[in-house]
Amino acid sequence: MSRVSKSDQMKNTNSKAAVVLLSGGLDSATCLAMATEVGFRCHALSVNYGQRHRSELAAAKRVAQSFAAEFKTINLDLRTFGGSALTDDIDVPEAAGEGIPVTYVPARNTIMLSLAMAWAEVLGAGDIFIGVNAVDYSGYPDCRPEFITAYEQMANLATRAGVAGQRLTIHTPLINLRKSDIIRQGKELGVDYAMTVSCYQADDEGRACGVCDSCRIRAAGFEAAGTGDPTRYKSA
Amino acid sequence: MSRVSKSDQMKNTNSKAAVVLLSGGLDSATCLAMATEVGFRCHALSVNYGQRHRSELAAAKRVAQSFAAEFKTINLDLRTFGGSALTDDIDVPEAAGEGIPVTYVPARNTIMLSLAMAWAEVLGAGDIFIGVNAVDYSGYPDCRPEFITAYEQMANLATRAGVAGQRLTIHTPLINLRKSDIIRQGKELGVDYAMTVSCYQADDEGRACGVCDSCRIRAAGFEAAGTGDPTRYKSA
Repeated sequence: MSRVSKSDQMKNTNSKAAVVLLSGGLDSATCLAMATEVGFRCHALSVNYGQRHRSELAAAKRVAQSFAAEFKTINLDLRTFGGSALTDDIDVPEAAGEGIPVTYVPARNTIMLSLAMAWAEVLGAGDIFIGVNAVDYSGYPDCRPEFITAYEQMANLATRAGVAGQRLTIHTPLINLRKSDIIRQGKELGVDYAMTVSCYQADDEGRACGVCDSCRIRAAGFEAAGTGDPTRYKSA
Repeated sequence: MSRVSKSDQMKNTNSKAAVVLLSGGLDSATCLAMATEVGFRCHALSVNYGQRHRSELAAAKRVAQSFAAEFKTINLDLRTFGGSALTDDIDVPEAAGEGIPVTYVPARNTIMLSLAMAWAEVLGAGDIFIGVNAVDYSGYPDCRPEFITAYEQMANLATRAGVAGQRLTIHTPLINLRKSDIIRQGKELGVDYAMTVSCYQADDEGRACGVCDSCRIRAAGFEAAGTGDPTRYKSA
């Protein structure tokens, strides 16, 4: 696991390929900006998994283009299994409850990292970026540092590159940042947050509900960062 | 990692749910038979990943039905990335070469286990079966015991169940068996190998080429097992 540091920024002046998981939300957009800033040639991957908030895919494409990254969407219909408010006929709650929320999609980050790993192997890339965050987040198990570390260990045994002794690194530059710090750093790196969609039940134009967990965390982040919130709301 | 033993068979008289990855080939059919035999209520999962040998999906469905397992196919187009003779415009070789062959699909087992894990979590199941084999196999990195062990460690940090302290076990009952032993045990458990398709370039009726790596390993297995080979060949 690597949290890209200033010293990494100095080292990475070459143009190595990296796969960046890009959901179209605030965190992954910032993650792409950071990967680009430290010199990676970025290949952004979105997964169309049957999520309610399909407009995040259009947002992801806009964000990828704004950083001149190659962009691919892969289709994987997780509604085949259901089990989440994001993929099943379960209401998105308006307030955070106890424990892991119903918006948790079973095995989502494991699946997405596996898809990123497949693309990385085809590209010959040894670096994957994922915008997980273990501070201002929804309490999903697959956002924790110990999960990422275990994933990286497994990944290095899974692939042809691993057999050849090439390391695969999972970069999580946001993992210990507060949402407000993510926003501040992203703005410095030129992220246009008006392009991003965080809401779990955004409409087709990407307008947010303002009441779900993701909307609340995002709005609080912009307030704490002391910067204008460009989020467009359905009622606005 | 667990290689289901006779003592396990004695213990598992209850009807716990398990997810069984089922490709439609010889190994996974035997794996399903073994999981059923030790008392699991099996949910068989096939992945339509854009493989050349699409007839294996029909084979998987027949095999699942023959063991009264629930059956699901999930669509995931790995041709989005390419990079394998099974998903890309690369010829399937007629003989095994050096190293990892071009039929290796980048990150395939990692992806499939992740999908199985998603379904297991929705079902509340703590057991996944995968018919990987590290003896008579094609040399893929994601068939090795150390990969499976690392996967299991990661999986137990990835899910809601893992957070709640419930163990997820990846069963690999075939991992140390010779192909001939897999066939003998499968026949004892009632597997109809005429239903299965192993060939990497089988035609739509499931008839095999007889020359690819998978065909050669299968034919040698039936010969070593001293039992009739029910494989239908294209030329027959």
